[in-house]
Amino acid sequence: MLAQRLAGQPATRAQDIACELTDAAGPRLAGSKGDALARAWALEKMKAIGLTNVREEPVTVPHWERGPISVEIVSPSQPLVAAALGGSISTPPGGITAPVLRVTSIEALVALSDDQVRGKIVYFDKPMQRVRDGFASYGQTVDVRGKGAIAAAKKGAVASLIRSVGTSNARFPHTGSMRYQEDVPKIPAAALAIPDADILTRLFARGQTPSVKLVLEATQHPDATSGNILGEVKGRTKPDEIVLIGAHLDSWDLGPGGVDDAAGVGVVLEVARLFLAEPPARTVRVVLFANEENGLKGARAYAVAHAAELPKHHVAFEVDGGAGEAWQLLWTAGEGADAAMAPLAKKLAPLGVEAVLRNDDAGGADLIPLEAAGVPRLGLKQDARRYFDLHHTADDTCDKIDPAEIAQLTAAAWQSVRHVANLPERLPAAPLPKPE
Amino acid sequence: MLAQRLAGQPATRAQDIACELTDAAGPRLAGSKGDALARAWALEKMKAIGLTNVREEPVTVPHWERGPISVEIVSPSQPLVAAALGGSISTPPGGITAPVLRVTSIEALVALSDDQVRGKIVYFDKPMQRVRDGFASYGQTVDVRGKGAIAAAKKGAVASLIRSVGTSNARFPHTGSMRYQEDVPKIPAAALAIPDADILTRLFARGQTPSVKLVLEATQHPDATSGNILGEVKGRTKPDEIVLIGAHLDSWDLGPGGVDDAAGVGVVLEVARLFLAEPPARTVRVVLFANEENGLKGARAYAVAHAAELPKHHVAFEVDGGAGEAWQLLWTAGEGADAAMAPLAKKLAPLGVEAVLRNDDAGGADLIPLEAAGVPRLGLKQDARRYFDLHHTADDTCDKIDPAEIAQLTAAAWQSVRHVANLPERLPAAPLPKPE
Repeated sequence: MLAQRLAGQPATRAQDIACELTDAAGPRLAGSKGDALARAWALEKMKAIGLTNVREEPVTVPHWERGPISVEIVSPSQPLVAAALGGSISTPPGGITAPVLRVTSIEALVALSDDQVRGKIVYFDKPMQRVRDGFASYGQTVDVRGKGAIAAAKKGAVASLIRSVGTSNARFPHTGSMRYQEDVPKIPAAALAIPDADILTRLFARGQTPSVKLVLEATQHPDATSGNILGEVKGRTKPDEIVLIGAHLDSWDLGPGGVDDAAGVGVVLEVARLFLAEPPARTVRVVLFANEENGLKGARAYAVAHAAELPKHHVAFEVDGGAGEAWQLLWTAGEGADAAMAPLAKKLAPLGVEAVLRNDDAGGADLIPLEAAGVPRLGLKQDARRYFDLHHTADDTCDKIDPAEIAQLTAAAWQSVRHVANLPERLPAAPLPKPE
Repeated sequence: MLAQRLAGQPATRAQDIACELTDAAGPRLAGSKGDALARAWALEKMKAIGLTNVREEPVTVPHWERGPISVEIVSPSQPLVAAALGGSISTPPGGITAPVLRVTSIEALVALSDDQVRGKIVYFDKPMQRVRDGFASYGQTVDVRGKGAIAAAKKGAVASLIRSVGTSNARFPHTGSMRYQEDVPKIPAAALAIPDADILTRLFARGQTPSVKLVLEATQHPDATSGNILGEVKGRTKPDEIVLIGAHLDSWDLGPGGVDDAAGVGVVLEVARLFLAEPPARTVRVVLFANEENGLKGARAYAVAHAAELPKHHVAFEVDGGAGEAWQLLWTAGEGADAAMAPLAKKLAPLGVEAVLRNDDAGGADLIPLEAAGVPRLGLKQDARRYFDLHHTADDTCDKIDPAEIAQLTAAAWQSVRHVANLPERLPAAPLPKPE
C-alpha cells in the first residue's frame, strides 16, 4: 500500500487487497451503493487471482440508512459528537429534548423506579476496557448497545444514549446493531463518542443534571438484494470435501471497514492465492459473506443454499477479528480430533501463536448457522488491543493495518487451514449447539 | 478532571481549568455563541480565583461560520472526510465536480502551465512530519493551507483541497485560516483528513485520475463584538510595571480547543493563582485574547488600547503551544539582558528544560503586535509531537491533556515568569522588527 511504502514499511498482499476493496467500495452496509460496488469488486478480484467457480449467490438483506444527527447539551450549549445505532428509529420532527439520567449498566437502570426514568433520556455510562482478548471485554459491555433502548423504554424513557462501546479516546462514535422488542415502545438510540460521554460524565460529577436535545434521522427501507461471493481452489485428491474460508464483505456505514472486515477479506483471498500454487487435498472455498453486520443474512442464506452439501464441509474458518496478530488457534470438532490437531501447535509456535485449543466457541459470527449441521470450525484469536479503537467507526480505514501484524495473521491462517485441509481423515462432526 | 481521576492519574489544576472552560463554552470561534460563553466563564473564573481589575475590553472580530460539507470521489463513489478551511467561500449551488490534479507543493503547481491546471480541483499532497519542534515542521507545510487557493486560482483551478496539515492518521480534518488575494478569483478551499488524502494518493499511484464533487457552505457574517478578558495580581514593589501572561480564549470551530488553547488558559490562570499567594515585585496581568485563530484582532486591540502603557510592559509571555512539556525557554530582549536571564537555566533544569536561549522569535502570535513597542518577550518551547494530532481538529478535547506534562509546563511557566517579574532592573527593550 502506498502510504506504507511511503513510510518505508513493507506492504503485504493482504493489506493491498484490503485497500483495494475499501478504495473501490467505501462504506458498504447491506443494501447500500457500496454493497453493490463491493460485490462487483470481489467477483472481479477472485477471477483475477485465478479462483474457479466464481459466483454470486443472492441474499435478501435489511436496508437501514443513516440520516443526519445532532446531539446538543442545552445549557451550557455544547454540541456532542454522536452516531445513531444501527436500526434506530428517527426522533419526531423537532427532535427530543429531555433531562439526562445517567446509569452505569442495564442492571442499575432496572433497579430504578419508573418514576425516576419516565420522560428522561437515559445515558448508559459503561466503559469498555482495552485488553488483548478484546471480544471478551466487548461482550461484557455491548449489552447497553443491543438492549439498552428496550430496557430504557420499558421504564418510560424517551431516548437512549450510550458511551461508545470502544476503546479509543478519539472523537469517533461507535455504531452497531441495536434491537427493539415487539411489546415495548421504540425509542431512538445513539452512541456518544468517548470524549463526549466524558463531558456528560464530568457535568454529573460536578452535580449538574444536563438536558440534551437529540435530533436523529434514519430510514428502514424495504429489504434489498445483496449476495455472497464464492470462489474455489479445487482439491487435489478429495475435491468434493470442502474447506470453507470466509470473511464478510459488508461493513458498517460510518467508514470503509478497513479492519472490519476488509482485512479479513484480504487475508482469505491471499491464503487462497497461496493455495493456488499448491492446492491441498480438499477443495478450498472462499466465501465473502453479505450482511454480517446487521442481520447475518448472508451466513443464513449460505447454510440454506448449501444445506445438502454441509455434510461435506470438512471445516469452516473465518477471519473477522481485525488485522491484529493471532495469538491462539481455537478449534471445534467432535471427540477424537485432538491427535489430528496437535501438530498444529508446533507449526504455529514460530509465528508467536501461543496455544492451539479446543473450544466450542471457535469461529466467527458467519459460522453460527453452520453449527446446527455440526460443521467443524477453526478460528484465530487476534490481539484486539487496537481493534476496538477502529471497529464500527468512521476511522476504520485500511491505512491503520499494521503490515507486520497482518503478515503474521496471514501466515497463521494459511498454516492452520493447510494443515486441516490436508488431514488424511475427516474431522469428526462438532457438538451441536445446546437448545436455548 | 474526572476522566483522569477515573483512570487513576492525578489531575492538575491547570487541566481542571481547561476542562471547565471547554465544558462551559465548547467550540468558540470569534463571533460564535461559544465565544460569548467563554468570555462569561473567564470573567467569573478570574473573580473566583481572586484576581483584581477583572474586566472585558471590546474587540471587533470577523465572524465566519461553517456550514455543511460533502466531498465525494465520483467513481468509484466514495465519501471523503473533509472540512472547509477558515475563511473559505461556498461552492455554487450544486457544488463543483472536476478532475483532481495532484501536486506536492505550491512550487510544483507554479511550474505547471495554466492549461494543465484550468478547470481542475488542485489537491496539495504535502505531508507534515511529526517532530518535537512541531511548529518548525508546521511552518514548512502550512503554506498550502494559507496560500494554496490563491496559487491554484491564479492558474484557473476551480477549488483547492489539501492534505490536512497535521500529524494524526485519524480521520479528523484540520482546519485553519486561508487567505484570498484581491486581484485573484476566490475559489473554495477544504482540507481532507489524512486517511482520506491517502485514498486519493493511492488512486493516483495506481494511475487513476479521480474526479471529485465538492459541496461546501460557509458564511462570512458582518463583524461581531468580542473581547479580551483581563485580570491582575498587583505587584508588591513596582505595581505600575506590567508582566503580561497570556493565552487565547477563542478556538477553532470544529472542536472545543482543549489543547489549543484551553490548556494555555489553564496554565496562565493557575500561574496567576500561585502568584496571589506570593505576589512578585511587578504586577502580573493575565490577558485572555480574543480571535487569535482567524484574525489576531484581540492582540491588535490590546496593543492599541494599551499603547500609552506599553513602555511600562516589563515582559510579555504567552502559552499557546498545547499542553506538552516545555523543553526550551526562549527570550527576546535588548543587549545586556544575558546576565539577568542566566540564572533561569539552573531553576528550570530540574524540570527537564534543556536550554534558556535568547531568540528574536520568542513569544506566541498574540505578542506580535507588541513587537513594534519593543516589549521584551518570553516563550516556552513545548514538545509538539502529539500537539498536531489534535490542533484545529474536532478531536481537540481536554481529556487529551497529559496531567504530568501540563504540571511540568505550569511549573516551568511559573518559574520563568516569577524570575523575570522579580528582576531588580527592567529588561532592556527588545529589538524592533525589521521592516518587510
